[in-house]
Amino acid sequence: MRATVHVSLKKGVLDPQGQAVQLALNGLGFAEVEQVRQGKYLEIELTETNPTTAKEQVEQMCERLLANPVIETYSIELES
Amino acid sequence: MRATVHVSLKKGVLDPQGQAVQLALNGLGFAEVEQVRQGKYLEIELTETNPTTAKEQVEQMCERLLANPVIETYSIELES
Repeated sequence: MRATVHVSLKKGVLDPQGQAVQLALNGLGFAEVEQVRQGKYLEIELTETNPTTAKEQVEQMCERLLANPVIETYSIELES
Repeated sequence: MRATVHVSLKKGVLDPQGQAVQLALNGLGFAEVEQVRQGKYLEIELTETNPTTAKEQVEQMCERLLANPVIETYSIELES
């Protein structure tokens, strides 16, 4: 089973990496770019086959390692 | 218009960051994790309203700045 996890900064949290990308794009001539926010995503291959258990496990992984719950949110999608 | 861009390493390209995450998860007791691959994603707000033009622009952004076409692939989704 594969889990796809998206981790992004919460709304209102400053995203200097996204700002840097925006400025670089503007500098390259892409004047139509208004805002950029950057996050990360992970594809996790699991031996677990039960979707409910797998989702619980991946939520724990996010809380304990993959995301910083203070400033980041995450979303999980599962596919078998 | 908003574009969501996913940038990931091509298949076969070593992903040390993903491996580090996998080992860390295994070390935390998540033995069911077989493989992890990590990528980045960007949410880009554009003033452009024509989907065809917007997609072309974002493709250029990927080729010129956001992705390294030698080792990375990217995918683009647009929503208005």
